[in-house]
Amino acid sequence: MTNFSLDARLAADTHSVTDLALSRVLLMNDARFPWVILVPRRANCSEWLDFSNDDQRELLQEQLGVMSVLQELTGAHKLNVANLGNMVRQFHLHIVARFETDAAWPGPVWGQGVREEYSDNEAQALIAALKQALS
Amino acid sequence: MTNFSLDARLAADTHSVTDLALSRVLLMNDARFPWVILVPRRANCSEWLDFSNDDQRELLQEQLGVMSVLQELTGAHKLNVANLGNMVRQFHLHIVARFETDAAWPGPVWGQGVREEYSDNEAQALIAALKQALS
Repeated sequence: MTNFSLDARLAADTHSVTDLALSRVLLMNDARFPWVILVPRRANCSEWLDFSNDDQRELLQEQLGVMSVLQELTGAHKLNVANLGNMVRQFHLHIVARFETDAAWPGPVWGQGVREEYSDNEAQALIAALKQALS
Repeated sequence: MTNFSLDARLAADTHSVTDLALSRVLLMNDARFPWVILVPRRANCSEWLDFSNDDQRELLQEQLGVMSVLQELTGAHKLNVANLGNMVRQFHLHIVARFETDAAWPGPVWGQGVREEYSDNEAQALIAALKQALS
């Protein structure tokens, strides 16, 4: 059995927030969109279908929990939830708070424009708020 | 209590396949991508969070069922699953079979190029195959 290790590109593009029962919680380092990524700590999974039934149910609960927290913290106009994985095959679930005024609205966020990194202070504040709300 | 009725834009862009316990199954009328849309038959829902716990669990099971069927029927290289809803607010879940040779790879399918409608024969064959596999 292979151990889980976070994909290098996901690690490079994100800040680590916390670990839930199943998933590592990451904050995409893009100040344009409040954007959380869940990565179940299981090796060799790229599709929802690759997880056990128990893990699928837990992943749904963690997805819903992050959605509630993002909605509460940001007042988003819409939440976008997606597993694409066409570029990074390690399974990862995007949960993005969208606003009618954001840089990509009403299109999807992927591949739109250039990522704008958070300042250290901004990142730390958002990470702390997410961590507290998810605990 | 308001009754469910399918959003007019979703209806215009798709063929109806069948009804599962919770969701209407639609085939996006775009021959570039094998693309199913699930629409739970509930009024006034636009987010995963708007459904009851039972409906959330059922929706996940229907999502997984459609994923299995699409994988089996198409041999997709990757499945993409998303709820966006930035344009059409009625909750709908996209499940798209992706190929490394398809018109949008590796980007997402939304807003890419121009939809290419199926011929009547193509659509009927795919609808019949989906309906049988889902029954």
